[in-house]
Amino acid sequence: MSELADVNDVPMKIRNHKYPAKEHNLRVKDLLFERNSKLSKGSTAFFIAGEELEGNKYCDTTREYRQNRYFYHLSGVDIPASALLFNCNTDRLTLFLPNIDEEDVMWSGMPLSLDEAMKTFDVDEALYRSDLESKLQDLQEFTIFTTDLDNIHDKDIEKYLTPSDSDFFYAMNETRAIKDWYEIETIRKACQISDKSHLAVMSALPIELNELQIQAEFEYHSTRQGGRSLGYDPICCSGPACGTLHYIKNSEDIEGKHSILIDAGAEWRQYTSDITRCFPTSGKFTKEHREVYETVLDMQNQAMRLIKPGANWDDLHALTHKVLIEHFLSMGIFKKEFSVDKIFRSRASCAFYPHGLGHMLGLDVHDVAGNPNYDDPDPMFRYLRIRRTLKENMVITNEPGCYFNEFLIKEFLEKYPERLELVNMDILKKYMYVGGVRIEDDVLVTKDGYENLTGITSDPDEIEKIVQKGLEKTRSGFHVIV
Amino acid sequence: MSELADVNDVPMKIRNHKYPAKEHNLRVKDLLFERNSKLSKGSTAFFIAGEELEGNKYCDTTREYRQNRYFYHLSGVDIPASALLFNCNTDRLTLFLPNIDEEDVMWSGMPLSLDEAMKTFDVDEALYRSDLESKLQDLQEFTIFTTDLDNIHDKDIEKYLTPSDSDFFYAMNETRAIKDWYEIETIRKACQISDKSHLAVMSALPIELNELQIQAEFEYHSTRQGGRSLGYDPICCSGPACGTLHYIKNSEDIEGKHSILIDAGAEWRQYTSDITRCFPTSGKFTKEHREVYETVLDMQNQAMRLIKPGANWDDLHALTHKVLIEHFLSMGIFKKEFSVDKIFRSRASCAFYPHGLGHMLGLDVHDVAGNPNYDDPDPMFRYLRIRRTLKENMVITNEPGCYFNEFLIKEFLEKYPERLELVNMDILKKYMYVGGVRIEDDVLVTKDGYENLTGITSDPDEIEKIVQKGLEKTRSGFHVIV
Repeated sequence: MSELADVNDVPMKIRNHKYPAKEHNLRVKDLLFERNSKLSKGSTAFFIAGEELEGNKYCDTTREYRQNRYFYHLSGVDIPASALLFNCNTDRLTLFLPNIDEEDVMWSGMPLSLDEAMKTFDVDEALYRSDLESKLQDLQEFTIFTTDLDNIHDKDIEKYLTPSDSDFFYAMNETRAIKDWYEIETIRKACQISDKSHLAVMSALPIELNELQIQAEFEYHSTRQGGRSLGYDPICCSGPACGTLHYIKNSEDIEGKHSILIDAGAEWRQYTSDITRCFPTSGKFTKEHREVYETVLDMQNQAMRLIKPGANWDDLHALTHKVLIEHFLSMGIFKKEFSVDKIFRSRASCAFYPHGLGHMLGLDVHDVAGNPNYDDPDPMFRYLRIRRTLKENMVITNEPGCYFNEFLIKEFLEKYPERLELVNMDILKKYMYVGGVRIEDDVLVTKDGYENLTGITSDPDEIEKIVQKGLEKTRSGFHVIV
Repeated sequence: MSELADVNDVPMKIRNHKYPAKEHNLRVKDLLFERNSKLSKGSTAFFIAGEELEGNKYCDTTREYRQNRYFYHLSGVDIPASALLFNCNTDRLTLFLPNIDEEDVMWSGMPLSLDEAMKTFDVDEALYRSDLESKLQDLQEFTIFTTDLDNIHDKDIEKYLTPSDSDFFYAMNETRAIKDWYEIETIRKACQISDKSHLAVMSALPIELNELQIQAEFEYHSTRQGGRSLGYDPICCSGPACGTLHYIKNSEDIEGKHSILIDAGAEWRQYTSDITRCFPTSGKFTKEHREVYETVLDMQNQAMRLIKPGANWDDLHALTHKVLIEHFLSMGIFKKEFSVDKIFRSRASCAFYPHGLGHMLGLDVHDVAGNPNYDDPDPMFRYLRIRRTLKENMVITNEPGCYFNEFLIKEFLEKYPERLELVNMDILKKYMYVGGVRIEDDVLVTKDGYENLTGITSDPDEIEKIVQKGLEKTRSGFHVIV
């Protein structure tokens, strides 16, 4: 219909730049010494061995490869079995590539050379793994921090390393939490890939007979744009299943279902997007679906306006519960004789909105440094994945939801008489078929506010138009042979 | 263009049948006691713990799940963290499902109940993992064979088990080697999914700008038909890269390339297909590409005619080398003054056809029980994955190839003057741009011959027609928004 996607399209701003690995190491160093003043810069280093290709058991295929995120952040290197060494005394970053396997070359061609590696990556030196031991020997007096010893396989190398240091992890996590310009452009690109893939899904209803085909549609369009993987298992559900938060089946037929919820995000160069959209299969929201949708949109909008450096995420999360309660009072699900405040304090809204408002986003979908407290006795905050104030250049999701799920109602409502009495069960029953709505956008915290990196519309009128336009096409207008 | 694929379409013959796990256990038992007459049927059992869901490191996403193939073959169960116990005395097969995690139910819904498990799987008893220890205690006097102790996590259970017994593996492997009717229908379905996906790829050239988009096309159509995964990383290459046997990049632009090679196979219910097709991007083979294609097709056809119980796979493999040599003599790549026999004995043909004619196929793409000998000093047979005579109801691939690859020519030709003198290098150079051709079909060994389970055509005229028909379509006729 429009231009074909170019798999190799790289955003202009980063096109002629290397992944800024060196700068990431320098920030980790600064934070580490800030945190632990006893350390000596003259004799401290970090070392990380990246992930290796791993075979499936009892056969010769390999598992899907995923680079260690800490390693990638400090190297920008996606080559299996590489390693990095950063010397805090000299600020020298050394990359170790795997030794060349002659048989491998015969079957798979030449790997990247050391010269090519120097041109490709932001490192001061590129060597082979076979040089690693002598390089570490040179640092015998150093404290060499590492994440873990998993991919070392060599006692002679292990002995130089200090794994699992909490200050080292703190420094790496805080560095990852604040995205630099390069990372922001990378996440922006991942979001753009997802935007178009979500649009394709919304537009393709005539050929989607099953939730798995929704997943196929999203993955197809992401891959075509160069997104080789998704950042997490996509959630593609229809009808009442939209109320299952971690729906993993993606296997039900769509026929007879009223609503679709798709939570899917493309990964681009290891950084992920994370976007959820909901739409009616008929191209027209029902009264109840629309009410729930507008509740969630209002929750998202009211939280969005408060996103800026210094904002406390707990406050925003609490606000979205209050917005939900107000809407449920209007809809009659909460009884009108009770106040917003009383309902809020009872935690009854957790039965319909049990998860957190959002999480950090980056190399991992639930990125590091959110400081959640899963032992919090308060059910409203136990599953909240950000428990801190926002800072400039954090990337977070804003993803309120509203669900009608028997298990959640049993767990968070029916077990508590003081919550149950607040609810008009007859009215609630009328909404069960909606299943659930979640609207999830990826948001950059800017100097004095926010920038929404998500482009696909969440306006219910716009969504109806997109779905309707898709439905008007005949099946033969789609590229489907089978 | 035609009917939409139904994700849930199950072949008629197996639609109302369970996966025949019990029968597989009984065959393993028979082979085990045949192999080791010292064992007592009254006090022997097998136990296998299936694969578990495994997290990605330092975050809360999980790795792609793949069930242990031995476990699946003896249970038909794809639920993570299950286990099975077969008692050779009573022939009783017990399935252990993971204990229910209440928090999991809240987020993901109810798992399969024990009653549902009994209805779904071919087992005599379904229990929870919490019952496992007491069940093993009842068999204190037994020898309980297991594959390994990887997913046991409990010394109190480990102590009952005997891992890594070679007779037990022999019995499991030989059972897996001979497919029953249910497995054959399952592989047939996987092949049908791949047939249609290959057809879609051949037909979609106007929208394929890059090798990754070829991969996206195949995966999309496989998933749409219910093939949730591929049996191996697909090889999608264009131009000279078709000569790289284990091409893993799938990232080059197609523009300016003459040929495509795609080696991809959908998995259906854990069983995989494995099909390779080659086609010209212009819709018309060049002279050299056609000559190479017909060489490989002749190799495949001549081997195919000999497939039947009792055929020695070494002989078929050797035959395909002779066919290649004959064609290369006609083409002038081998000098006409040398005989087929002399060239064959020199092993010069390994430079153009270094891999084996085929392999066993089933739950793994390179399935068990082929008995390869990777230490064979003879380069013609070192990489051959079947070194035995064929038996009825084996499923194998027939996949000769012919490649023009600098590394292979260096390794297998230029290092050996006695091989190099057989080759006319000037003529060889004219074929280098072809890259390579492989034609791979999946074949069932029948009582007195074979059945080709692969439906997608390999006829070069037919392929030209399919590609041309695709090229005639305008881009807007395809379902591509982005």
